[in-house]
This record gives sequence, C-alpha cells and structure tokens, in this order.
Amino acid sequence: MRFCSACGNPITLRVPGGDNRLRACCDQCGAIHYVNPRPVVGTIPAWGDEILLCRRAIDPRYGKWTLPAGFMEIGETTGAGAVRETLEEAGARIELGPLFSVIDVPHVEQVHIFFQARLLDLSFAPGDESLEVQLFPEQAVPWPELAFRTVAATLRHYFADRARGNFSVHTEAIAPLTAAPRTQEA
Amino acid sequence: MRFCSACGNPITLRVPGGDNRLRACCDQCGAIHYVNPRPVVGTIPAWGDEILLCRRAIDPRYGKWTLPAGFMEIGETTGAGAVRETLEEAGARIELGPLFSVIDVPHVEQVHIFFQARLLDLSFAPGDESLEVQLFPEQAVPWPELAFRTVAATLRHYFADRARGNFSVHTEAIAPLTAAPRTQEA
Repeated sequence: MRFCSACGNPITLRVPGGDNRLRACCDQCGAIHYVNPRPVVGTIPAWGDEILLCRRAIDPRYGKWTLPAGFMEIGETTGAGAVRETLEEAGARIELGPLFSVIDVPHVEQVHIFFQARLLDLSFAPGDESLEVQLFPEQAVPWPELAFRTVAATLRHYFADRARGNFSVHTEAIAPLTAAPRTQEA
Repeated sequence: MRFCSACGNPITLRVPGGDNRLRACCDQCGAIHYVNPRPVVGTIPAWGDEILLCRRAIDPRYGKWTLPAGFMEIGETTGAGAVRETLEEAGARIELGPLFSVIDVPHVEQVHIFFQARLLDLSFAPGDESLEVQLFPEQAVPWPELAFRTVAATLRHYFADRARGNFSVHTEAIAPLTAAPRTQEA
C-alpha cells in the first residue's frame, strides 16, 4: 500500500496516536488504512461415506485437490459464503451443517473456516476454478495431492471424528513451511 | 475506496474477467482491490464463577460494557489476538481456553470469534480503551448496558452451557436493527 485509497496522496507508515502498531496513514486527509487477516470459508460436502473434492484450475496449486472454499465476501455470513463457494467451485447444492474447523494461517494472513455439509444431489460439476469435481471414499483421498494443509487437517479431523461417531469443532494453527515463499503457502 | 493504493490513480468499480462481483479495479496498473469481512477476536475471562467485563472508553458504545475483544491483526492467530486484546483492554493475563463462539455480523462486515479463558490473577486494570474493568457474577451482569449483541449472545450461551455443565461451540448470525445506522451496530 503506497497511496491513500480515499484521496490518492502518498501514505506514511507510522504509529497513530493511541495505537501501538505501524499503520498506513494519510497525512493529507487523515485516513488510517487498517489491514486485517481475511476469512476463507468452505465446506466438507458429504454424500454417504464419500466427500467431494475439487481439482484446482487456478494458481496457487493448479491441479491439486481441495475442499470447496474461498474468500468470504462483504455482506455475507461465514455459512452463506461456504454455501456460495461450494456452488461456485463444485456446482454442488448442499444442506449446510455445523461449524467444523477454524484454522489459523497467520503467515498468509488468513483464517480458514470449514462447515460440515450434506450434498443434496449428485448433479455437481466443475465451476470456472475447478478442473474436475469428484467424490472420494476415505481410502481414496489423494493425500499427497491435496492443495492446502488446512484442507488436509480438516479432512484428518473429519475422518477421525466420523470413525469415533462424534463430530466436534477443531481449531489449530498452521506454521509456515521453512523454505516456502510467503505468499503461496496455506 | 476512490484511488488505487498501489499507484494512486482513480479506481473503477467493475466486474473483473472471471469474477462475478463489482471490485475496485485500477485500469492504470491492473490492481484489483478485494475487500473482505474482518475478524474480531476476544475472550470470556473467568475467575471462579465471575467473568470480566470492560466499560468502553471509546466510540462506538462509549460507557457500555463489553468482553475484551478487537480487530485481529496481521500476522497473529485468532487465539493470540484474543489474548492480546484481553491484555490491552483489561490488563488481564489469561490462560486461553477453547473456541466458544463464532458470530457473523454481516451488516458491519465482521465475524466475532470468542474463546473461553481463565484469569491467571486479579491484577487486571483498564487499558486505554476501557474506563473500568470489573468481575461480574452471572446475576449482576449489566445486560441492558452491554455494548454489542455479539457480547450478549456469547454471554447467554456461556451461562447456559455452564448451567448444564457442558461447554460447546456456538455459531449464529446477528441481523441489523431496523433503524440502526449501518456503521455503528455490531
């Protein structure tokens, strides 16, 4: 961020009065531009014992498999965003279930939030951001080909909970991979 | 948002290729400025049967009571943010407990995330954003004087769970008050 989005003048990085962090401040119009982590919302769409994964048609992680998920939009709830992403990426209509995982990814400034979901029918189809969409039983999940560690963590918790017959909400934090570029890893 | 924060030129509101929403686009440098809801993180600090509330020294809701909470910062986890806000607003050192509530407030573009917490000692004191900090038993909670509905909802769930001896994670969405100004209500 180099210019004020309110007035177009150059911004200064400084600690505003009453604050304790460097912020993007505009000395022309007085605006302070706060930046915060972004919520990513998605689902674990289940059809009987199988779960639906999407193969990514976009970077990062082109060609890798993921749960349907994406950035939460202004004006929507976490649940509505998760339903929307599931429809956009997998063409899948779902009944949204309970919150399942909240996973911090601080090094990419994101919080990933997944909900359980039940597919309403089998008429799913890849959206613009997916190469293909496929149901997987647990033993066929392509673990080494998963796009993001938040997806792998969520699926591990999901299958473990299902095996013990008791679903709960899971929280954890994902640390950066040592040699990973800062903007690519989640 | 009227100017590109990357190059300072005026932005255009349009739907970028491959997207389906209006975005702040810069036709000069090509930047697309996405905006997303912001996470607010906080705690329910408990000392025995009492919980700690802060009386706000800032707008909105100056003089009203709240749980310690605030905007999640870049580079931190939800839990670390909740611990930081508890220290900043209430001068309180805590042991962070499990995730307790995730409450959507779409009309102010926020998601409020509260954790259970245990006060480590009684040396709390109001920070710059608080007029006073006080422990309340359930029967003394100033319900009509609470600052935000997410705080009231979280406290209702907390006391109900405690009464039945079983804490779980709660999710809900807060709708706008009919006549409330859009930027003030949470």
